[in-house]
Amino acid sequence: MDVISVIRTKRDRGELSPEQIDWVIDAYTRGEVADEQMSALAMAILLNGMNRTEIARWTAAMIASGERMNFDALSRPTADKHSTGGVGDKITLPLAPLVAACGAAVPQLSGRGLGHTGGTLDKLESIPGWRALLSNEEMLHVLDTTGAVICAAGDGLAPADKKLYALRDVTGTVEAIPLIASSIMSKKIAEGTGSLVLDVKAGTGAFMKNIEDARELASTMVALGTDSGVRTVALLTDMSTPLGLTAGNALEVRESVEVLAGGGPADVVELTLALAREMLDAAGLKDADPAKALADGSAMDVWRRMISAQGGDPDAALPVARERQVVTAPASGVLTRLDAYDVGIAAWRLGAGRARKEDPVQAGAGVELHAKPGDTVTEGQPLLTLHTDTPEKFDYALKSLESSYDIAPAGTAFTPSPIVLDRIS
Amino acid sequence: MDVISVIRTKRDRGELSPEQIDWVIDAYTRGEVADEQMSALAMAILLNGMNRTEIARWTAAMIASGERMNFDALSRPTADKHSTGGVGDKITLPLAPLVAACGAAVPQLSGRGLGHTGGTLDKLESIPGWRALLSNEEMLHVLDTTGAVICAAGDGLAPADKKLYALRDVTGTVEAIPLIASSIMSKKIAEGTGSLVLDVKAGTGAFMKNIEDARELASTMVALGTDSGVRTVALLTDMSTPLGLTAGNALEVRESVEVLAGGGPADVVELTLALAREMLDAAGLKDADPAKALADGSAMDVWRRMISAQGGDPDAALPVARERQVVTAPASGVLTRLDAYDVGIAAWRLGAGRARKEDPVQAGAGVELHAKPGDTVTEGQPLLTLHTDTPEKFDYALKSLESSYDIAPAGTAFTPSPIVLDRIS
Repeated sequence: MDVISVIRTKRDRGELSPEQIDWVIDAYTRGEVADEQMSALAMAILLNGMNRTEIARWTAAMIASGERMNFDALSRPTADKHSTGGVGDKITLPLAPLVAACGAAVPQLSGRGLGHTGGTLDKLESIPGWRALLSNEEMLHVLDTTGAVICAAGDGLAPADKKLYALRDVTGTVEAIPLIASSIMSKKIAEGTGSLVLDVKAGTGAFMKNIEDARELASTMVALGTDSGVRTVALLTDMSTPLGLTAGNALEVRESVEVLAGGGPADVVELTLALAREMLDAAGLKDADPAKALADGSAMDVWRRMISAQGGDPDAALPVARERQVVTAPASGVLTRLDAYDVGIAAWRLGAGRARKEDPVQAGAGVELHAKPGDTVTEGQPLLTLHTDTPEKFDYALKSLESSYDIAPAGTAFTPSPIVLDRIS
Repeated sequence: MDVISVIRTKRDRGELSPEQIDWVIDAYTRGEVADEQMSALAMAILLNGMNRTEIARWTAAMIASGERMNFDALSRPTADKHSTGGVGDKITLPLAPLVAACGAAVPQLSGRGLGHTGGTLDKLESIPGWRALLSNEEMLHVLDTTGAVICAAGDGLAPADKKLYALRDVTGTVEAIPLIASSIMSKKIAEGTGSLVLDVKAGTGAFMKNIEDARELASTMVALGTDSGVRTVALLTDMSTPLGLTAGNALEVRESVEVLAGGGPADVVELTLALAREMLDAAGLKDADPAKALADGSAMDVWRRMISAQGGDPDAALPVARERQVVTAPASGVLTRLDAYDVGIAAWRLGAGRARKEDPVQAGAGVELHAKPGDTVTEGQPLLTLHTDTPEKFDYALKSLESSYDIAPAGTAFTPSPIVLDRIS
């Protein structure tokens, strides 16, 4: 087996054999296949594709590069969800304790933000004392005692994916559906969950800008999960405007706690409940009632226990940014568009996100929305509030918001997009 | 300017801007763009192509990465040729002194062999004392005093190409016509020749297996040369069977000297004269008579002076391999096929070529042909003689010859391929 023949096979539109895939993933993980060889292969895969058989083997080979976790010792069925990421996407925060309150075990291995989309771990780290890094034993303990855990994935899970993702990031080969699907699913399958709900977002603030790409990614991942014995379903959801009324770490934690307290923005509640029902269905808990668990405080109870078990103080005051600036509506009328990507970029520039993996984030920074598409606004009313500890960034953040919204004359008919666009199983 | 946006442009089938090309070649040469990034770009170029404007700029940027030579001080017009390489392709050896004998200056920067095709420098190094490495001053001196020089290209010429070629070699991105054309032409244009004849080979023993690919490569290179002010013409020539009756270093030098002495195989003489006429035409020496210069010994005189000027002894006995093995014809009839690639691989396995750049070659190793396609053969007559210093390689070499030839019943009609298949200017 030699790497050039593997590269040539895909370059010349051939199908990679199981042996070629197993060998190249293993040899790359061991350092025998060099980065410049893997990046040429990744570009060939991006441009020439992989079929379902190849993607399944590629995913299996990445799983085989590391350890597999096992939740068989738990008394509850496990349910996990993965979101492809968006702006204001804090859903994991209320969802994990909510599903746990309904009887499932929710092992939620999460990531940090990069670019304009936030990261679940960054958000939770704005809670004083909360720790993202747990040993496997600690993770199982939190899961077993509280029903849910949200923590960083250990280094032992799919190390081939870790190495390949870092390479794709610097070689223009991120946007390959077979590679995205196998990257996400290798970690989820290695994690050992019994069921998985995928939140695949489409729109300006999402990784997939159009619904067709999102649908292809969702179908690919559902097939991968199903073929590996994980009950997998995907919801295609809208990411053309931010979810909820906040984008930023502590801002989103506050909003998530509002949802757990029975309030919160309608779209966040709707999506949280839709995903919760799918997770509970997939876990075989068809009689559970997540709306009730939100209303009766049982989801909030799990949240408090889960945060405490990871060192956090659920009653501590959340960090607040030192400076604020308000963007007001320049005219009266109906807000017909508020662009998720532009808001994400503004939040990122204010300090909520990072440009490089090693950068710190500001807990209090971000953007607060005072209106959503469909709302009536009055000239001069606050539209957005920008939060930051580094006020010298206001102008830079405002630049990304210049053409981020449209206001139509009062009385203009407007039909907002549904949150859930489609379901794939 | 950042490399990921350059990669994305080509990945998404866009046209690279002049600024993108200049920047990426310069940044890669300086090490700012990493190998894994350049290999992803090379794969995108291989799969999505470059247009004529992009290829011209890419070539210019590679030329600009190093020094340019200048032959303006010479009293004669300069003429150069480049062959894309084949089996038994010793044409440079008789051609350079022949064209010099007709009044042109022939600065022939050549390479070493890799894989199944031989290298001009390897062949000449079988002459005792001969040196391939000359300083720029030595090169100009040999050229000025003898009319021809065949030597290694200096490190200063198109260093971007040197680095990129080594990368393409290990990443499955050699076979991209825009990259092949710009690699060849950047060195030839930087070398400063006034005219250039390209010998673009097609057939099993060539880099381009089919005539359409060879034609596209030839057209691309002719356009590049012409756009840079170099009078450029290309001959498409046959490489389905070896050129002449020898493949191997000293074996080919002996055959070249036979041609310079007025003898030698008909196909080698025909191609040498065809290329000589093109070179002399392109150099503006339309009245020269290369056939006469072969017949009257003046080409041989230049050969002897050129070899001597580079430290070689034109009268020294050439190295002979220690062991020989004969392949005999298994039947009587007409030889209708003798495959160039198979013979090239056999010569390589016998020690005439190298697997890696740093390997040594055997001067005496190679394959001698006793019949060519179209010849009548008798059962039991010698068909091929294998030469090597490492007789343990005989079996391995014989393996590549097992299905290398066809013998049809006596009287079967057979029309050999012409040597020159087409001309592109």
